[in-house]
Amino acid sequence: EISLIRVQGSGMIGVAGISARLFGALAKEKISIILITQASSEHSICFAVEPDAAKKTQKVIEEEFSLEIMARQINQVVVEDNLCVVAVVGENMRGTPGISGRIFQALGKKGVNVVTIAQGSSELNVSIVVNKKDESAAINAIHDAFFINGKKTLHLFLVGPGLIGGTLLGQIHKQLNFLEREYALDIKIIAIANSKKMILDKNGISLNNWQSRLTNSTDAMNMQAFVKEMKSLKLSNSVFVDCTASDSIVSYYEKILSSGISIVTPNKKANSGCYEKYENLKSIAVRMDVKYLYETNVGASLPIISTLNDLILSGDKVLKIETIISGTISFIFNSFDGTKRFSEIVREAKEKGYTEPDPRDDLNGRDVARKVLILAREVGLVCESSNISVENILPEHCQNAKSVDEFFVELQKADAYFEQLRSDAAKHGKVLRYIATLENDKVRVAIQSIDEHHPFYSLTGNENIIAMTTGRYKEKPLVIKGPAAGAELTAAGVFADLIHVIN
Amino acid sequence: EISLIRVQGSGMIGVAGISARLFGALAKEKISIILITQASSEHSICFAVEPDAAKKTQKVIEEEFSLEIMARQINQVVVEDNLCVVAVVGENMRGTPGISGRIFQALGKKGVNVVTIAQGSSELNVSIVVNKKDESAAINAIHDAFFINGKKTLHLFLVGPGLIGGTLLGQIHKQLNFLEREYALDIKIIAIANSKKMILDKNGISLNNWQSRLTNSTDAMNMQAFVKEMKSLKLSNSVFVDCTASDSIVSYYEKILSSGISIVTPNKKANSGCYEKYENLKSIAVRMDVKYLYETNVGASLPIISTLNDLILSGDKVLKIETIISGTISFIFNSFDGTKRFSEIVREAKEKGYTEPDPRDDLNGRDVARKVLILAREVGLVCESSNISVENILPEHCQNAKSVDEFFVELQKADAYFEQLRSDAAKHGKVLRYIATLENDKVRVAIQSIDEHHPFYSLTGNENIIAMTTGRYKEKPLVIKGPAAGAELTAAGVFADLIHVIN
Repeated sequence: EISLIRVQGSGMIGVAGISARLFGALAKEKISIILITQASSEHSICFAVEPDAAKKTQKVIEEEFSLEIMARQINQVVVEDNLCVVAVVGENMRGTPGISGRIFQALGKKGVNVVTIAQGSSELNVSIVVNKKDESAAINAIHDAFFINGKKTLHLFLVGPGLIGGTLLGQIHKQLNFLEREYALDIKIIAIANSKKMILDKNGISLNNWQSRLTNSTDAMNMQAFVKEMKSLKLSNSVFVDCTASDSIVSYYEKILSSGISIVTPNKKANSGCYEKYENLKSIAVRMDVKYLYETNVGASLPIISTLNDLILSGDKVLKIETIISGTISFIFNSFDGTKRFSEIVREAKEKGYTEPDPRDDLNGRDVARKVLILAREVGLVCESSNISVENILPEHCQNAKSVDEFFVELQKADAYFEQLRSDAAKHGKVLRYIATLENDKVRVAIQSIDEHHPFYSLTGNENIIAMTTGRYKEKPLVIKGPAAGAELTAAGVFADLIHVIN
Repeated sequence: EISLIRVQGSGMIGVAGISARLFGALAKEKISIILITQASSEHSICFAVEPDAAKKTQKVIEEEFSLEIMARQINQVVVEDNLCVVAVVGENMRGTPGISGRIFQALGKKGVNVVTIAQGSSELNVSIVVNKKDESAAINAIHDAFFINGKKTLHLFLVGPGLIGGTLLGQIHKQLNFLEREYALDIKIIAIANSKKMILDKNGISLNNWQSRLTNSTDAMNMQAFVKEMKSLKLSNSVFVDCTASDSIVSYYEKILSSGISIVTPNKKANSGCYEKYENLKSIAVRMDVKYLYETNVGASLPIISTLNDLILSGDKVLKIETIISGTISFIFNSFDGTKRFSEIVREAKEKGYTEPDPRDDLNGRDVARKVLILAREVGLVCESSNISVENILPEHCQNAKSVDEFFVELQKADAYFEQLRSDAAKHGKVLRYIATLENDKVRVAIQSIDEHHPFYSLTGNENIIAMTTGRYKEKPLVIKGPAAGAELTAAGVFADLIHVIN
């Protein structure tokens, strides 16, 4: 229920100061304004206040403009009572031309007279002032006209529909009905691009045949055009998903976040590059109130980064992080129990597809270092990859081998060295693990001998594990453990991040 | 940049159908409307379109109203060019009377003429149409007038400032500066109530002296008034925090969520009551687009429920959950390694404050059953507490003891029975654990003997642990482990949930 106040007069046209004085006077008296409209050519300004405040409002204005009223520059201050505001609100209204038409047609059909309309340019809200007696008629009419009740839509722009991106699209496809039914959530794929081509369809790309549409697309991939289009569409809940491992895509993140578009990505490049870039992206996201999510940078879909964030946001202090964060490394050391030689296990890992084409790319510890760098930054450490001490597992002659075959020959020569390490540890009831540790603002990645009391002692297979010791988890750490390899789990983590953007 | 279209004429007053026809005609031609204002008494309606669409819009309207124009009921359709819209948008604008005043004073001072104003009744957006040449002056003026850039405020209404609630307020107090600095996030405590008194202050209750304000308050606790006031304040990002264990507070949840207010609570009562209530609260939250969060119902601040939700939302299927979910039970069985008698350990647990005043309230398994019931429901099972098979650890003579002292006498008599269980397991290299298991849509809570390959074998102290086996975590489960007792950790989990409401 509202009262509408109308101030009118010939002296009001083109006088910039009138609005200022008017609203200034009201603000001083703490009169809250529910709705304002001032049509462009008119000699009047019109706004709604609580009925209780109407008399006072009139008095305040008459006092403020007493000179103008005497001079007849302002004719009168009119109060209209017995009115109410009906507001139609919804994110999906944006960019949907038919909405106003449907609202006013529905009201017209029911014979509801519209006293005032105000629609802000964000197109999220159409406010209609009607007579109090028309209130329920208006609400019912509008209700009946709209079936799209409260559904939220995520608009997805995906680059890199390869192993992870393609798996993600498949997972989304399977899950669409469930999300719509249970959570009133829709996911629309607006654009897909690989390194050669792109498709963009603001009405949504069907997940039944995106592959063939992309293959047959005549649009060459052009990241600049992709970003420009994404920006200009201004769709609500837009999310850019980067499933590449590319550095050049990352160079667009800043622009994308600055445009009010969220980013979800398993791509580690942005966060493991220079600190300044990382920090800048995080702060743009805060400033623009969008999400920048990358749970899958570390441990695939294991809830590691989100848990760290929760600890820190709620005021806990991280004292120590220990983690085995590479499935490959985990498998190799967990399997190294004396029954097989070290080189045999590395070969087995390669045959199972656990390693990079050249296993040295895993064993040099750089992948682990990149991941723990990101964790260190999440904890609040200002650090670069050069601040991380990384032990290369391999003796130098293995590192220097000129081919993968030659590497395996050299690795066999190192078997005695590794066996010595292992048996020395075993003598004290310990096992070898390659652990990344963050403690006292220092990060190191090294082989350690640990005993049965250590949470990583009983690790098997290619599981990842993290133990977080904090001010609150002090006596015993919070531990998260599980598989963290493969497209299925990584895509699932990206999917969960996507849902966090909207839900 | 926009063009403003103005349709005016004496025939427009009080004719409900005009708006309908106007916007209907525009919708048919897919002309998107950026802004509408219609002042209450005027003979005109005014709206903004893209400059490219202005000519076409004019033509459409002249065609639609050709009869009225001939009859002079509509005088003219005017197009104004070289205009632009400046929109001031923000959640914190709601209910803040000074905002309009500051905007228009700032514009007036810079001599910017306001062509049109539209403020929707949600008070989230004030749109101002100005001349193109004034664009940067207007933007700069408004920018300078506001220092409150993008800050988000959480408005908190807390019931139950006891051990957990009081700890939570302390944690929030310590963290306020950090959240504001790093995340532009403010938390305002609007109301605090205990079982006797309440305080409510829409300007925020200082965390320096809330205890004395509450003690000295003259307002008796009245939950109905509390909820009514919370509703009528209509503050953005309102969250009701229930830190009681009360059933009567829970009876207000439905009303609170329905009013568009989020709920965060460690209180298990709502979710472990009848399924219908649980389901109803969840669906109201979805419908109203508010949060209903209760991570701390299970495992204090361990990220258990959020992880389960992520799995399910992203389309994973939970095949099996195994969990030790009571710190008390965990401690008792982890300590039962043959060095002490069972009754001694239970007594020690009681002395450490781990148990309820009567330890049978832990050992009867009902607390575990309530928690696993909630997990089962989160996984999608439609179930009641009566569907859960719970093994009471205690022989009947212990259950029937008439006092706690008598119970301990009887428990000593049962030491031989427990030692037999333990040594039978130990003979096969196994240990005893009291585990809740969800599998094949069935939930049971029972003592099990497990060997060293089971993830719960090496559990120590009073840790909680959960292992989730799913379609994607199939070969090895996702495991989360850590301490989960005490007010500090529970409050931290509530705090993290609070931040999830807004962040």
